Amino acid sequence: MATVEDLMRKIEILESQLRDAQSRKQRVKIDKMSSEVVDSNPYSRLMALKRMGIVNNYEQIRECTVAVVGVGGVGSVTAEMLTRCGIGKLILFDYDKVELANMNRLFFQPHQCGLSKVDAAAATLQEINPDVVIETHNFNITTLDNFNTFLDRIRLGSLSSGPVDLVLSCVDNFEARMAINTACNELGQTWFESGVSENAVSGHIQFICPGETACFACAPPLVVASNIDEKTLKKDGVCAASLPTTMGIVAGFLVQNSLKYLLKFGQVTKYLGYSALTDFFPTMELKPNTTCEDSFCRKQQSTKKLIEKPIVEPPKEETVVHEEDWGITLVDESAVVDESKKEVAKGLSYAYEVPVSDVTSEEPVVQEEGDLDDLMAKLKSL
Amino acid sequence: MATVEDLMRKIEILESQLRDAQSRKQRVKIDKMSSEVVDSNPYSRLMALKRMGIVNNYEQIRECTVAVVGVGGVGSVTAEMLTRCGIGKLILFDYDKVELANMNRLFFQPHQCGLSKVDAAAATLQEINPDVVIETHNFNITTLDNFNTFLDRIRLGSLSSGPVDLVLSCVDNFEARMAINTACNELGQTWFESGVSENAVSGHIQFICPGETACFACAPPLVVASNIDEKTLKKDGVCAASLPTTMGIVAGFLVQNSLKYLLKFGQVTKYLGYSALTDFFPTMELKPNTTCEDSFCRKQQSTKKLIEKPIVEPPKEETVVHEEDWGITLVDESAVVDESKKEVAKGLSYAYEVPVSDVTSEEPVVQEEGDLDDLMAKLKSL
Repeated sequence: MATVEDLMRKIEILESQLRDAQSRKQRVKIDKMSSEVVDSNPYSRLMALKRMGIVNNYEQIRECTVAVVGVGGVGSVTAEMLTRCGIGKLILFDYDKVELANMNRLFFQPHQCGLSKVDAAAATLQEINPDVVIETHNFNITTLDNFNTFLDRIRLGSLSSGPVDLVLSCVDNFEARMAINTACNELGQTWFESGVSENAVSGHIQFICPGETACFACAPPLVVASNIDEKTLKKDGVCAASLPTTMGIVAGFLVQNSLKYLLKFGQVTKYLGYSALTDFFPTMELKPNTTCEDSFCRKQQSTKKLIEKPIVEPPKEETVVHEEDWGITLVDESAVVDESKKEVAKGLSYAYEVPVSDVTSEEPVVQEEGDLDDLMAKLKSL
Repeated sequence: MATVEDLMRKIEILESQLRDAQSRKQRVKIDKMSSEVVDSNPYSRLMALKRMGIVNNYEQIRECTVAVVGVGGVGSVTAEMLTRCGIGKLILFDYDKVELANMNRLFFQPHQCGLSKVDAAAATLQEINPDVVIETHNFNITTLDNFNTFLDRIRLGSLSSGPVDLVLSCVDNFEARMAINTACNELGQTWFESGVSENAVSGHIQFICPGETACFACAPPLVVASNIDEKTLKKDGVCAASLPTTMGIVAGFLVQNSLKYLLKFGQVTKYLGYSALTDFFPTMELKPNTTCEDSFCRKQQSTKKLIEKPIVEPPKEETVVHEEDWGITLVDESAVVDESKKEVAKGLSYAYEVPVSDVTSEEPVVQEEGDLDDLMAKLKSL
């Protein structure tokens, strides 16, 4: 029979093993990014970007704060990439839980099922890089109270209690995108939109600087799902397809262009599409719509003293349909082109009405509507 | 004082906590991929590719075996994507250990430092998806004995003990690429080459079908590092830069094109480049070189009864330098263009000599060299 001493020793060993298993050799915090080339320096390969002449001031990333809205297939990888790059602070927003059904995308692991996505993500990210400050909000930004908190955190959430440097939209529905758009237009906050199609084989990122580029309401999708979300659809035994490849690539494009924006190197691409079946990467630039339904967008446009006439620039190679996530899709060509019909499939509705002109000077409006017609014609010809 | 019973109970609790912490709620194996849309089905979003009309036979992925050579910044993410997609079997090759200096790329975590990359990867991948069969080889494929084992595993390592379906090269040096090329030419094995530049802002993937497309020796980099590797360079306080974005994107392209090849949907892109600074994605196709130094390549060409004259097809948009990983780089334009000089920087040497023609019919050779000159001229003009 074991003695009390034997049992005490056994307890000590088990406690130590448990500490080990739970804490899993966390790395210590690092005060200052170093360029030293040793195996123990997690920043050596990033600081090498300076020696290579790519980035002048890599350390500055530690002063940057980025808000990631939506911590799913794109958002979680986005947050991980920024964490590994040594971003100063991340603010994560999501209200979903981790499920086994998410395991076909990168980042989350089966043992995290049941946890909120923001809590599970924060734990993993903090283990990967304890130098990053992580703030989490486990709520839906589209309800009134939460929207106000969201607005406040964008305005005051940075490391220096000022506005964040960038907002990254990684959400999967129209309402959430519109909420982010509304907040960023009001605050004059620069952000990136991103999305992956419901068939999993295309995606895009879009850079939005209020008043300078088209906002999400300037050129919204023509048809969106009305009052249906992924959860409702799941009940009917239908869900969107997704792939870790497409979502990883879109997250990569999003963070790469965020790094170019934050650290001022290369060129930030205004709109970058990705079509997986043919490896086609359309790019384009969209100027703001002077008759945008969002009054803050119009206000930002006048403060930015935009002098050129608003035009939709021709895309470089091919006209691109502003493809959307799950539940946001063009139903068919006739629905898109024949505005007079105003009939779409059940469960779908027009996201916006063609605005009635209330401007006295007619010339720019005509100019713009001409361009819209032009775009419609191109859409039709696709 | 605690009684023996108290201590025994405490031990029981600790043992259970330790089991919990160590096993971390692993998911059970799943016999058959199901399309059922429930939160507990890790394959619902992948099987939805069938309903969406993208893939006819998604379940077939479970019969596929892929060898991933190099489990670093690109290879680890490649293996994770394939694991989450439910690949039948993965064979991993690497001989490196996880270090904190790798933490600026996705996948590995600080608590894995010191473990071999293949062991650390296998543990994580198995936790993510226990349905995948994982075989690991912790050795350098370029030594003679290991090369023979490597050749054997490519030839006999599939789930049905036949050849693997695809080899993915995710290595970071010329010797390892040449070893994979030699093995695949000898076996007639289809594979993908991949690489990321030492300045971290460009990368590529290349599809290689022996005898049908150019092999790695048909159009190798003109100048390579001679007897220097990352480890040697680290001693001098210099290392290559790397970014989780670029590596994640290259892994995404690699796996996306692998899925298209394995499951027969979309178009497999023969060469896809990525330039992060401008979001430029060059593509091209390279036919095999009839005077390739690899005799197995020439043999594969004759068995494939290639009838067209070998030509280097003009790239779609812009000529692309076959950029290479760390230690493999074009020194300067004069070194590339002036073949007669044969002088390169210290530590570098020409990877190959321009082959002396030993063919009796002169016409096709002249044709080919003309095209090479053409390519050189284009390179110079860049």
